[in-house]
Amino acid sequence: MPLIAQPQSMHFPEALALASGAVLRGYDLAYETYGALNADKSNAVLVCHALNASHHVAGSYAGQPRSEGWWDNMIGPGKSVDTDRFFVIGINNPGSCFGSTGPMHVNPDTGRVYGADFPVLTVEDWVNAQALLLDRLGIAQLAAVMGGSLGGMQALSWTLQYPDRARHAVVVASAPNLTAENIAFNEVARRAIVTDPDVHGGHYYQHGVVPKRGLRIARMIGHITYLSDDVMNAKFGRSLKAPTLPAAHGSLPPEGADPARGGPAPDLREYLYSTQDVEFQIESYLRYQGDKFSDYFDANTYLLITRALDYFDPARQHGGNLAQALAVARARFLLVSFTTDWRFAPARSREMVHALLENRRDVSYAEIDAPHGHDAFLLDDARYMSVVRSYFDGIAKELQ
Amino acid sequence: MPLIAQPQSMHFPEALALASGAVLRGYDLAYETYGALNADKSNAVLVCHALNASHHVAGSYAGQPRSEGWWDNMIGPGKSVDTDRFFVIGINNPGSCFGSTGPMHVNPDTGRVYGADFPVLTVEDWVNAQALLLDRLGIAQLAAVMGGSLGGMQALSWTLQYPDRARHAVVVASAPNLTAENIAFNEVARRAIVTDPDVHGGHYYQHGVVPKRGLRIARMIGHITYLSDDVMNAKFGRSLKAPTLPAAHGSLPPEGADPARGGPAPDLREYLYSTQDVEFQIESYLRYQGDKFSDYFDANTYLLITRALDYFDPARQHGGNLAQALAVARARFLLVSFTTDWRFAPARSREMVHALLENRRDVSYAEIDAPHGHDAFLLDDARYMSVVRSYFDGIAKELQ
Repeated sequence: MPLIAQPQSMHFPEALALASGAVLRGYDLAYETYGALNADKSNAVLVCHALNASHHVAGSYAGQPRSEGWWDNMIGPGKSVDTDRFFVIGINNPGSCFGSTGPMHVNPDTGRVYGADFPVLTVEDWVNAQALLLDRLGIAQLAAVMGGSLGGMQALSWTLQYPDRARHAVVVASAPNLTAENIAFNEVARRAIVTDPDVHGGHYYQHGVVPKRGLRIARMIGHITYLSDDVMNAKFGRSLKAPTLPAAHGSLPPEGADPARGGPAPDLREYLYSTQDVEFQIESYLRYQGDKFSDYFDANTYLLITRALDYFDPARQHGGNLAQALAVARARFLLVSFTTDWRFAPARSREMVHALLENRRDVSYAEIDAPHGHDAFLLDDARYMSVVRSYFDGIAKELQ
Repeated sequence: MPLIAQPQSMHFPEALALASGAVLRGYDLAYETYGALNADKSNAVLVCHALNASHHVAGSYAGQPRSEGWWDNMIGPGKSVDTDRFFVIGINNPGSCFGSTGPMHVNPDTGRVYGADFPVLTVEDWVNAQALLLDRLGIAQLAAVMGGSLGGMQALSWTLQYPDRARHAVVVASAPNLTAENIAFNEVARRAIVTDPDVHGGHYYQHGVVPKRGLRIARMIGHITYLSDDVMNAKFGRSLKAPTLPAAHGSLPPEGADPARGGPAPDLREYLYSTQDVEFQIESYLRYQGDKFSDYFDANTYLLITRALDYFDPARQHGGNLAQALAVARARFLLVSFTTDWRFAPARSREMVHALLENRRDVSYAEIDAPHGHDAFLLDDARYMSVVRSYFDGIAKELQ
């Protein structure tokens, strides 16, 4: 039976104190739940989202085909995270543009839309907000908290902020902080948005415009860092954009094409010799991704979420010593990384594994040989799905 | 005695036929020469420039301290490419913004500034223009043609277009074509420029504006790809921007700081919690680089040069078979790559080495273990300089 998702929302009248010293007052959190909470409320799994996702983690909305949640391949009845056994909660973080209170909502203190005045949030702030939602749901302790990428940072942070509230943490394709290069890519994306003449200092809603140029560039940069060089070569190589006439070259080569350098066989049509028209398929793909994103994503949210990524660094207050920072953790851990992920490379997961082992934590670690780069954490990969399934099978056994 | 450089210019009234089918009429080429051409004109070395450089390769301009050429560490009296023995020619390619005819010059066909109407050029077109300059200088055959990055592509192309006109080719930190990821980064940079409201379809000169926002973003993206992740961590890590008060944290950590993940020791000052202000040193560095570049580089030139990079692909007309494409080469080769260069990785140089060896060409290859990424080809590295010196010592012996 297909899983039907139903978005819910909860209002929090109390002020949420933030790391910056600011507070967030009178906010709503959007969330979804799948499966049933058991009698002793011990089977809850919290799923944290990354930059471009939401509380809609699994299932589809009634009457809306192709509305699958972003981790629907992982989570659902009989899936790796089995909603027949677990009560799974997807939550949308404050500052997002997908339902929870964010920059396009009204600031109760001023009666005006927040825009650029929305307070800057950290991973720790999000975890605090998530904990308050669990309080209201009556869940004292999670069976597991899980997430990929920025979601993995939240899962890790849960084990540090609330060591006794998550028995397991599943941290996929993540890192204990951003490298200078990671921050650099975020900064270029932010500059593209902030220098877009339509941004109006972040108060563009009042001007009836959206800094789409900047959002497009931000998304194009992001997309490059989500994919591996090899998968880009295999998918697009140096192929030219499909001509308007139907032709053998008209469709993308299938995934799994020879991923050797140079990718698909060369395209012998003549170049257009243009600096502004689309010449190569990779250009067409990136422009499409940028256009699509700029139609639905909020620019202020992009700024906020990339900053939360930049700031996350639990070792910072411990002189850079990650093992010391993780000493408070009590959870058991599954970490997963992907060989071709150069955004959050396997070495970054191994740093966390080593720091946890130094603290004699119980850690499982899988380095999945996958060609898809950082995006692999969202894709179907038999070994990846099977590693997560086995781990959750183990958690399910503890429930019996 | 310091080398004094003197820019020169040569006018070409004849039309240059371009790969696109267009022609370039009545153009000038800027160039510099260092050292003396010997009696039989056999000691000339042509140096080809990359994206952001010019004919000013070596020496300084009289009365202008700190005006060293971009490869001054490599080329000069007693240096690896010794101008006491070789007659070195630096040339500025057409389409550039540093002296040769480019988009900001007047189109003789219309009497108006070219702007976006400047014809799209290829690496092959540049090599043809360079060959015409050599004709005028009376140089039938080069002792060597050399270049790094895009300049290396020109050096390689010389051996294919004019197999008998260069006895040696020195191809540094280069590639036989761009990968999909390389093209993707170029495309994002181009989109940032082309969607800048100040671009006016490439005819911004007439409007008295410059698409600086786009140029800044383009340069920031470029800079990230020129550096290695490790050198960024070593140089900047997660250090915060220097406070206005003098403090121990105020200066950049020296190069050679611990390049381990995380780089310099954590900076314990409080975050600013701002999405728009500079927080981290890496942001400050990138913004500075972007600002500086947008003050002197021409946006149309950026579009043209990145397209020439995209188009270069000598194997294209040979079904993707690089060995077949290189079969016409007669030169002897030195190729150099740098271990941490992820823009043009060592594997790309090895592709060329293998293709040349398949053709039983004489090839020397050095893979230099350097932390600086693609930028390494411009930097002082004792092993790198020594490899090039030995190679040119060998060429000098042939002259005697």
